[in-house]
Amino acid sequence: MLPKIGVLNISDRASAGVYEDTPGQACVALLREWLSTGFDLDYKVIPDEQAVIAAELKRMADDAGCCLVVTTGGTGPAPRDVTPEATISVCDKLLPGFGELMRTTSLKYVATAILSRQTAGVRGKTLIVNLPGRPKAVRENFEAVFPAIPYCLDLIGGPRLETNEAVMKAFRPKA
Amino acid sequence: MLPKIGVLNISDRASAGVYEDTPGQACVALLREWLSTGFDLDYKVIPDEQAVIAAELKRMADDAGCCLVVTTGGTGPAPRDVTPEATISVCDKLLPGFGELMRTTSLKYVATAILSRQTAGVRGKTLIVNLPGRPKAVRENFEAVFPAIPYCLDLIGGPRLETNEAVMKAFRPKA
Amino acid sequence: MLPKIGVLNISDRASAGVYEDTPGQACVALLREWLSTGFDLDYKVIPDEQAVIAAELKRMADDAGCCLVVTTGGTGPAPRDVTPEATISVCDKLLPGFGELMRTTSLKYVATAILSRQTAGVRGKTLIVNLPGRPKAVRENFEAVFPAIPYCLDLIGGPRLETNEAVMKAFRPKA
Repeated sequence: MLPKIGVLNISDRASAGVYEDTPGQACVALLREWLSTGFDLDYKVIPDEQAVIAAELKRMADDAGCCLVVTTGGTGPAPRDVTPEATISVCDKLLPGFGELMRTTSLKYVATAILSRQTAGVRGKTLIVNLPGRPKAVRENFEAVFPAIPYCLDLIGGPRLETNEAVMKAFRPKA
Repeated sequence: MLPKIGVLNISDRASAGVYEDTPGQACVALLREWLSTGFDLDYKVIPDEQAVIAAELKRMADDAGCCLVVTTGGTGPAPRDVTPEATISVCDKLLPGFGELMRTTSLKYVATAILSRQTAGVRGKTLIVNLPGRPKAVRENFEAVFPAIPYCLDLIGGPRLETNEAVMKAFRPKA
Repeated sequence: MLPKIGVLNISDRASAGVYEDTPGQACVALLREWLSTGFDLDYKVIPDEQAVIAAELKRMADDAGCCLVVTTGGTGPAPRDVTPEATISVCDKLLPGFGELMRTTSLKYVATAILSRQTAGVRGKTLIVNLPGRPKAVRENFEAVFPAIPYCLDLIGGPRLETNEAVMKAFRPKA
């Protein structure tokens, strides 16, 4: 059985079909580029509703058994941006270092990086990571934190993920 | 009607008239220097009492209709330093990137920057930002985060603020 | 009466005697190297149980009167890693700058630094600081934040600690 990875795109307009879900597609393309381990994809587009996001995160973690769930969108300061709140509400443990590193990374490009409220956390054996909603920022941010993700899954009892070392090196500290 | 900006100075000694309120005045001087958009000022000096601070933040946001409220002081580890707690208690959303960037900025000057507990957040259509209490640190910190503030107000439904580009450039990402 | 410092080592295996408590010993060695002020040591090794950690932090702070308590271990994302939760549960005030700086420091060495959930906070007149569990990381992290610790103790009503300036400079801002 292949490991399962969830990509959850959170956008009122994409879920209503007004926009194409480009950040979610960018995310999937990166996973396919970086991971040499095969995986099954659980892909969904939903609106910016905190209860809907929380329910979907729980489903992907608990029912679908995703080892990793990556969200895109809903991390800004606007009234409809509630992805971090939904994430925090379903996690057993928070990992503030993900948000810190993503903001530091984005600050090299845009002064408004500090408006991003992205976080990450663990629910059971699932790592949940918030990414931004702009496709260009998705790559910058995901690239910054991805090297730590395979080892995190090792630690929380997830499957062993291997990467295509030419394009993405996972970091596993020596015992 | 001009946009309204609140400057809330939190200091037992300044509110008792023992000290002059220099950080608050530094703050106002910077706003006048950086903003080309005119604004009305709501200026107050209050003691380090969590309930008083929270009530004043609510008044400035809800009753006075300030689009931006900047606090000075009360962000350290001492028993009377409760500005972050008061801020967190009245915000709908927290913006951890503000505190992170201010601490990183101050770390270039003082190793004790990590003792600063400054945060920022959104209450309704009001952005609340904590600044430190030392006038020199007020400038360093405010200068670091200010470029992101006008766009944040755009996102939360506030007025459009323009800056004097020669001294302060606001950053607005291209759509 | 000498100031008292607590070193609390949190590890299921070290507390069961399976491993030697090397991070705790590294911590004590650094305190003896850096501090010129003499101090009494309150040293303990306990398992990764949130309630046990919280009780021990309270005892060291309230009953033993430690001005500083340093923990090692239990800060990762694994199910048994609950040191930050125990720390947060007993602190009056959190100091997020400690965790931020420790993660930034470790990121120079390991991409997995973002998995570390270390924090720090104040309980009454006691500063509590989480350090990681790997002895090498203990030094890197403690070295990064230590310069701010003596001034923090000044601010929270603790004893005045002096350092051996040749190896560790405490930073106290000028009034």
